[in-house]
Amino acid sequence: MFKFDDTICAPATPVGAGAISIIRVSGPDALKVADKIIRFRNGFALSSEGYTLKYGTVPDVDEVLVSIFRAPNSYTGEDSVEISCHASAYIVSRIMELLIAAGAHSAEPGEFTRRAFVNGKMDLAQAEAVADVIAAGSEAAHKVAFNQLRGKYSSELKALRDQLVQLASLMELELDFSEEEVEFADRNRLRSLLDEASAHVQRLCDSFRAGNAIKSGVPVAIVGAVNSGKSTLLNALLGEDRAIVSDIPGTTRDTVEEVLTLGGVQFRFIDTAGIREASDTIEKIGIERSLQSLQKAEIVLGVLDGLAPVSEIRKACNEILGNVSPSQTLILLLNKIDAAPRDLADELGVPVLDISAKTGVGLDTLRERIAADYASAAVSGNATLVTNLRHFEALSRARNDLSAVRSGLDSGTPTDLLAEDLRSAIRELGSIFGEIAPDEVLGSIFSKFCIGK
Amino acid sequence: MFKFDDTICAPATPVGAGAISIIRVSGPDALKVADKIIRFRNGFALSSEGYTLKYGTVPDVDEVLVSIFRAPNSYTGEDSVEISCHASAYIVSRIMELLIAAGAHSAEPGEFTRRAFVNGKMDLAQAEAVADVIAAGSEAAHKVAFNQLRGKYSSELKALRDQLVQLASLMELELDFSEEEVEFADRNRLRSLLDEASAHVQRLCDSFRAGNAIKSGVPVAIVGAVNSGKSTLLNALLGEDRAIVSDIPGTTRDTVEEVLTLGGVQFRFIDTAGIREASDTIEKIGIERSLQSLQKAEIVLGVLDGLAPVSEIRKACNEILGNVSPSQTLILLLNKIDAAPRDLADELGVPVLDISAKTGVGLDTLRERIAADYASAAVSGNATLVTNLRHFEALSRARNDLSAVRSGLDSGTPTDLLAEDLRSAIRELGSIFGEIAPDEVLGSIFSKFCIGK
Repeated sequence: MFKFDDTICAPATPVGAGAISIIRVSGPDALKVADKIIRFRNGFALSSEGYTLKYGTVPDVDEVLVSIFRAPNSYTGEDSVEISCHASAYIVSRIMELLIAAGAHSAEPGEFTRRAFVNGKMDLAQAEAVADVIAAGSEAAHKVAFNQLRGKYSSELKALRDQLVQLASLMELELDFSEEEVEFADRNRLRSLLDEASAHVQRLCDSFRAGNAIKSGVPVAIVGAVNSGKSTLLNALLGEDRAIVSDIPGTTRDTVEEVLTLGGVQFRFIDTAGIREASDTIEKIGIERSLQSLQKAEIVLGVLDGLAPVSEIRKACNEILGNVSPSQTLILLLNKIDAAPRDLADELGVPVLDISAKTGVGLDTLRERIAADYASAAVSGNATLVTNLRHFEALSRARNDLSAVRSGLDSGTPTDLLAEDLRSAIRELGSIFGEIAPDEVLGSIFSKFCIGK
Repeated sequence: MFKFDDTICAPATPVGAGAISIIRVSGPDALKVADKIIRFRNGFALSSEGYTLKYGTVPDVDEVLVSIFRAPNSYTGEDSVEISCHASAYIVSRIMELLIAAGAHSAEPGEFTRRAFVNGKMDLAQAEAVADVIAAGSEAAHKVAFNQLRGKYSSELKALRDQLVQLASLMELELDFSEEEVEFADRNRLRSLLDEASAHVQRLCDSFRAGNAIKSGVPVAIVGAVNSGKSTLLNALLGEDRAIVSDIPGTTRDTVEEVLTLGGVQFRFIDTAGIREASDTIEKIGIERSLQSLQKAEIVLGVLDGLAPVSEIRKACNEILGNVSPSQTLILLLNKIDAAPRDLADELGVPVLDISAKTGVGLDTLRERIAADYASAAVSGNATLVTNLRHFEALSRARNDLSAVRSGLDSGTPTDLLAEDLRSAIRELGSIFGEIAPDEVLGSIFSKFCIGK
């Protein structure tokens, strides 16, 4: 009945100022273990139905409420209990000791979710989404992770895999009769199905840059000459939002200086310290120091000093243009227009947005422009976004396999070789939702989880 | 039916790395509010029995498990739900927003426990114990708080109050017939009952010093001459325990340097930095700098340098003896006996314990001596310990009232005045478990709680 014969336990809530702590127990002996350490007011846990609560006492330790789940209707698919006690580190450690003495053992990181996967409660992409849902620090990141958790993402990949399986069966039909040297499959139909699937895989691969940016925060670089007003602009953009952002704990900032949420998407102003502290002695365009942050950026805000002579502005503008790649979104800003209103679009030959970081003119438009590409894609939740590096790598390999099949079709490669490439692409897609999941892959995925998940 | 007509909500688990977050909702509309924001798989919360769990979805936000409690069988005594969601700050804040939009409002600190008190689910001393149980960082502190939470402490105080009520009724019987100038009450019996009650109150007052020390950690000072080996001793005592202690989060250390748990009791080595960094230029007994920590200490470890000449040891010993009050436990230690074994007890005229902080000789005995007074009292849980300043103050006032009654009995004070003092003592005892609890007292108690408790 159970795929695991041992029972695991772990605290599922962090230690800190709170009222309640939860300790999870899962496995064939979960209810027996609970009965050993808890005196229930009415009957034993073992005789309880699932989805009920029992009140009891862990003698000398605490009064507890126990949620009872019967297999397969639990998170892990196993018999499980969740013990709700007072949020005291002492109590939690005592209950853990008692559970272990009663025969449970301390869970590995991610072991509850791993069991949920192995017991068929969720596929691998959904299991991975559990960690993403918990880590999501913005509406957009949450939406993407939640869609993946609910299985929408897996459904799309499964449908895509099914298309490839259909293609493969067309090819294999041909293979079965290959000695008769007949091409049963309609090659044009094959090509068209293949192109459709390839385009889909390519679209998913392409979404990774945006998906990953939304998950971790979209990197934005502010570049421009010294005194063009970069710091003032950053402070004006952050405004009141700075306090709100710092209220959200658990967001990993790494080298990030400031985080701003626009339209439900987090934007990370990367390495702006380098820009902001640009030495005053260099009285020329100071973008050298921020070149590195510029390369990492999805969005580049190029700040031009509206008070400078036109020749210098043009020079600064060209230097920025020369350092931005076509895959990046560049927004050129003509700052300080409160002091020197001027229309330079024609002279520069590129569109610029007039702003004043000091007075706030143009900043609402700028915020909309920054958010535009991401907010619509992510928050609407219509387009599927790949956010997971493992998935991106599998999709990239699948894309290469498909493109090998495509060119093989054209060059007359034998069908059995084409079928082999196609089967490889199918395996790659299947690995995303865990159709094929070697132990080392599972180990690497779940070891990144917290204990108790 | 309900004493409160509004419904409150608050997160009950801290934000941080975890798997599950809990949001509590309590009040007459708790189930209605849950039905508004959650799509349950089977039926509405409002139609559910208490002590059941329901699975549902907060659309676009999370999949949740909801524990349902029906009045009066809940923590607060009101209809309540506990929403268990993924441990994400974003999800918790979204669910809180939705609950508030659905008609609940954000709970004040301690408001759930305050409602539990007002609705008669626990008395005031038990309510106060909730915070103490959560904060308890050692077995002894936990035991004392847990006994108070379970009502053992209140029972003792209620029995004591009942004794005084009996006394008062004896007196009032006399008052009813006072115009006949007859002393009905047996004055000797009155005296004996009063002495018994007074002794009990006095015992409770006396327990506060130990109780408070156990709750917050017993303050220990290490004093002695420079180079007598104080730092070596502290490090030897802490030993492996240091790591264990730092694993327990949430223990407030204030000015405390090091915490050591012996026999389930926490000992705080206070202000030892001052001692440890005592200037080397002062080549005399260096206890001046640690005088302050010495005065706060319950236990004083007086370290004597076993390598010093006997005259200096005697001088150091006398200086320590002169600074320790009779209420403190002094343990004199002759250190470095590995290098210079000698028997000085007779010469010094006081018992000393031979130790070597360096080799560890005598340290087990020292640990037992440190723990002796507290471990037996607290961990056995036999003696009631007062740990709460508010209770101590009420008991002290009750003790003064009773002593006024006692001397009034001897000096022939009119019975109506004695009865008034006795009623005051009864009120003081009643205030501890909340028989009388003005709003400002409740406000001051519960404002110290966290939100969600």
